[in-house]
Amino acid sequence: MNSQNFTYLSVPTVNSPSKTVYFAAGWFTDKQNKAYKLAMDAIEKNPTIDRENSYVPLEHQYKGLRVDEHPELLEDKEWATATFNGDCLGIKSSDIFLCTYIPDEEDIGCGVELGLAKSLGKYIVLVIPDEDYGKPINLMSWGVADTAIKMSDLEVFDFNKPEYSFYEGAVY
Amino acid sequence: MNSQNFTYLSVPTVNSPSKTVYFAAGWFTDKQNKAYKLAMDAIEKNPTIDRENSYVPLEHQYKGLRVDEHPELLEDKEWATATFNGDCLGIKSSDIFLCTYIPDEEDIGCGVELGLAKSLGKYIVLVIPDEDYGKPINLMSWGVADTAIKMSDLEVFDFNKPEYSFYEGAVY
Amino acid sequence: MNSQNFTYLSVPTVNSPSKTVYFAAGWFTDKQNKAYKLAMDAIEKNPTIDRENSYVPLEHQYKGLRVDEHPELLEDKEWATATFNGDCLGIKSSDIFLCTYIPDEEDIGCGVELGLAKSLGKYIVLVIPDEDYGKPINLMSWGVADTAIKMSDLEVFDFNKPEYSFYEGAVY
Amino acid sequence: MNSQNFTYLSVPTVNSPSKTVYFAAGWFTDKQNKAYKLAMDAIEKNPTIDRENSYVPLEHQYKGLRVDEHPELLEDKEWATATFNGDCLGIKSSDIFLCTYIPDEEDIGCGVELGLAKSLGKYIVLVIPDEDYGKPINLMSWGVADTAIKMSDLEVFDFNKPEYSFYEGAVY
Amino acid sequence: MNSQNFTYLSVPTVNSPSKTVYFAAGWFTDKQNKAYKLAMDAIEKNPTIDRENSYVPLEHQYKGLRVDEHPELLEDKEWATATFNGDCLGIKSSDIFLCTYIPDEEDIGCGVELGLAKSLGKYIVLVIPDEDYGKPINLMSWGVADTAIKMSDLEVFDFNKPEYSFYEGAVY
Amino acid sequence: MNSQNFTYLSVPTVNSPSKTVYFAAGWFTDKQNKAYKLAMDAIEKNPTIDRENSYVPLEHQYKGLRVDEHPELLEDKEWATATFNGDCLGIKSSDIFLCTYIPDEEDIGCGVELGLAKSLGKYIVLVIPDEDYGKPINLMSWGVADTAIKMSDLEVFDFNKPEYSFYEGAVY
Repeated sequence: MNSQNFTYLSVPTVNSPSKTVYFAAGWFTDKQNKAYKLAMDAIEKNPTIDRENSYVPLEHQYKGLRVDEHPELLEDKEWATATFNGDCLGIKSSDIFLCTYIPDEEDIGCGVELGLAKSLGKYIVLVIPDEDYGKPINLMSWGVADTAIKMSDLEVFDFNKPEYSFYEGAVY
Repeated sequence: MNSQNFTYLSVPTVNSPSKTVYFAAGWFTDKQNKAYKLAMDAIEKNPTIDRENSYVPLEHQYKGLRVDEHPELLEDKEWATATFNGDCLGIKSSDIFLCTYIPDEEDIGCGVELGLAKSLGKYIVLVIPDEDYGKPINLMSWGVADTAIKMSDLEVFDFNKPEYSFYEGAVY
Repeated sequence: MNSQNFTYLSVPTVNSPSKTVYFAAGWFTDKQNKAYKLAMDAIEKNPTIDRENSYVPLEHQYKGLRVDEHPELLEDKEWATATFNGDCLGIKSSDIFLCTYIPDEEDIGCGVELGLAKSLGKYIVLVIPDEDYGKPINLMSWGVADTAIKMSDLEVFDFNKPEYSFYEGAVY
Repeated sequence: MNSQNFTYLSVPTVNSPSKTVYFAAGWFTDKQNKAYKLAMDAIEKNPTIDRENSYVPLEHQYKGLRVDEHPELLEDKEWATATFNGDCLGIKSSDIFLCTYIPDEEDIGCGVELGLAKSLGKYIVLVIPDEDYGKPINLMSWGVADTAIKMSDLEVFDFNKPEYSFYEGAVY
Repeated sequence: MNSQNFTYLSVPTVNSPSKTVYFAAGWFTDKQNKAYKLAMDAIEKNPTIDRENSYVPLEHQYKGLRVDEHPELLEDKEWATATFNGDCLGIKSSDIFLCTYIPDEEDIGCGVELGLAKSLGKYIVLVIPDEDYGKPINLMSWGVADTAIKMSDLEVFDFNKPEYSFYEGAVY
Repeated sequence: MNSQNFTYLSVPTVNSPSKTVYFAAGWFTDKQNKAYKLAMDAIEKNPTIDRENSYVPLEHQYKGLRVDEHPELLEDKEWATATFNGDCLGIKSSDIFLCTYIPDEEDIGCGVELGLAKSLGKYIVLVIPDEDYGKPINLMSWGVADTAIKMSDLEVFDFNKPEYSFYEGAVY
């Protein structure tokens, strides 16, 4: 991957196709929040991503209700079912499954989504913070990923040109 | 679920069918190891499970090589691919996906496997230690599970009679 | 199909395998109720079916609540979700999708289940009352069925020996 | 759903993406024909739908032969297979499964297609005539739908922004 | 694989489970016919295979018509569709996809079936004549196979104990 | 299919959608190489195909290593796995599965890919050299294809308008 290749792409042209992504990422820890913001900024700039029509789970609160303001929702089966179904809809209706992945803070929710995305035939891209790239990741995540890139490459990565590669790091 | 119902089943009869399970469970922490042992003991006794032909990942080390004795394997793509493919084979060739699930120590590997099992149309059963039953679990795990039982019910649970139920606990 | 062939099978032997079925059938009209009872009687007698472990939706009322006694359930999203998920579990965990099918009273619910069963790779068998066999059926049902038999053949049909055949009647 | 939100979308811009739909609808009764026409008019106007490349089954008669002029086709296995395969191709090659749905006149053909669309990972949208919206629908249709909208919203519904919601009506 | 391990299995016991296989094999050349016969003999003796209920395509001629006696069938769309659907039914309703595989005489029909079996989640076993074991095989066959065994091991191979392994030969 | 219909399409307009294809074709024999070149030329000119973002396996050599210069790769499990996974990624991330198909030189690799494409719900188009069109093809390829066109039609075929048709030739 040579970022030079993408320079001219950073000026989107009328006909350049763009892809929608399901934006899988945690928002529970400082590290996750930092990576979330970096990844979001990058996809805003990436001309091969249709940011406006991509599915960001946090933008799809069931009935506009926020869990932090309504903790009782967490015991409500209607809310849970609708939120789960919404995430499944986001995964299946997006072109690409983009997963912000922090080796030290792996999240079972991303795990389930990775498994679903694999079975739905989605192109699965892991984005790993530069400082964490190369650290061991879970074997099952490793196995379902089509490629794993560094955060600093996300802005110029060409999502129209799928390319398989192994993660260049260990598994555990 | 009333364990009385199963009393007569505890004497297996010649024709009683039994099911194979993929035994998903972590073995990294004390709590996981304890739960692993309890679950394994229970399926040994459960007459509706064909323990001998069930797929326990730890019993399927690629070429009999143990990672703790050969840490270099973790960077070996052949080993990683074979181990990943082996787990996928175990999931697809078993009747049931049985997941020992500890709410406080959720594991991304189980997550990916849960997603794959869901898409393969497997009957998904979470087994939760009695003392943890009711604690919040990840929403995506909640959504793909067909039922969630207590560890103390595993020994007498009838795997021939699938029954859907929500987990009786919160999600997060 | 020659029922003579199955005579010796009607005495089940110790090792004869048997299959579980998902018992899809309507119970809303007189004709449906009559066909339901005939089909149920037949599978009780068929030695290639494991009746005890087959999934009959009516035997799986969520929390044991009956809709006719609790009509308010029909507006309850928890009840609806659990019942839908239960039917999906029944379909995926059974070996065969057996559908009691009345050409004059086709039911959209069976339709959705037929589509799900097709995609899950189930062997799909339509059972049609003798007096209706040959009447036109919906093209999409026709296309997903692996075979269509007469009600009077159900008792002796060998579910261990899948055989593809077209429905011998028109479509519309 | 607030139709105001979509006003500016009604002037399509050069780069606005649009989606193809599989147009599932009955054409057997007066009510179905009326709904068919209303739905077709609406998708002609909806700028987020690529009407020209959407799949409308009636526009894909096998070899241009019409069943009403050639009733013998209904007994012809070649014709039936090609028509069934054509519908399956339409469903799988379209972005969205759009189903004109009349609660009082549910159709098993739409049912099978709904099941297939669910398993293919399509975004499933039910469109219900305004005067019928809220009436009970079949539980299985309810369970596979991603959202259910009113006919009068179809013209301005944004198919680029998938959003999960339960049907606001009873099931049966 | 040490055939000694299986000695005691060669006396089947009352409760030993057995699996059904889809018997994929060519019958066009001398080499294929020889391998076909060897493989068939082996599964007759293998106690972990339920030979009687396994699906052997040659035993499922549509309407009992043989192509060599009725070459006009090859242009008949009804016959072709029924035969294709029958093979698909055999694959989906069998536990295991067993493929007699001759490296020098690979067959596109087995190829399509391998792809379908992979997607249906079947355990895929290639059986290669001893004298050909190790010869290069097509990369795509290599990739979908769960294991590849020698013909002389087929008689004692334990189909109840799935084990992933790479083919020990080159690809091309 | 009347090529006149497509004349005006040969001048692509700003908004005309285009599809990506997975370009399945052999490159082992003279006949394959000739067909490969003809098909490649045709898709370069076809305005309904997005050639730039289509997946041509030969353009995706793992790590840029060519097998003819590095024959040792054929025994390397890392190389084989990455190449297999790359082909699977190409199939799943493309809109259409386009297969250059030579009846006399069928290739098991295309077979496996056809089976995978079928299960992933791809629109499958076989392209057959004009001089070979009508020759018998394998039954399983016949069954999974959505349509089969002549090489000379490929340049003007409208990939935005899926249409099912049987191959007009025999099977074997």
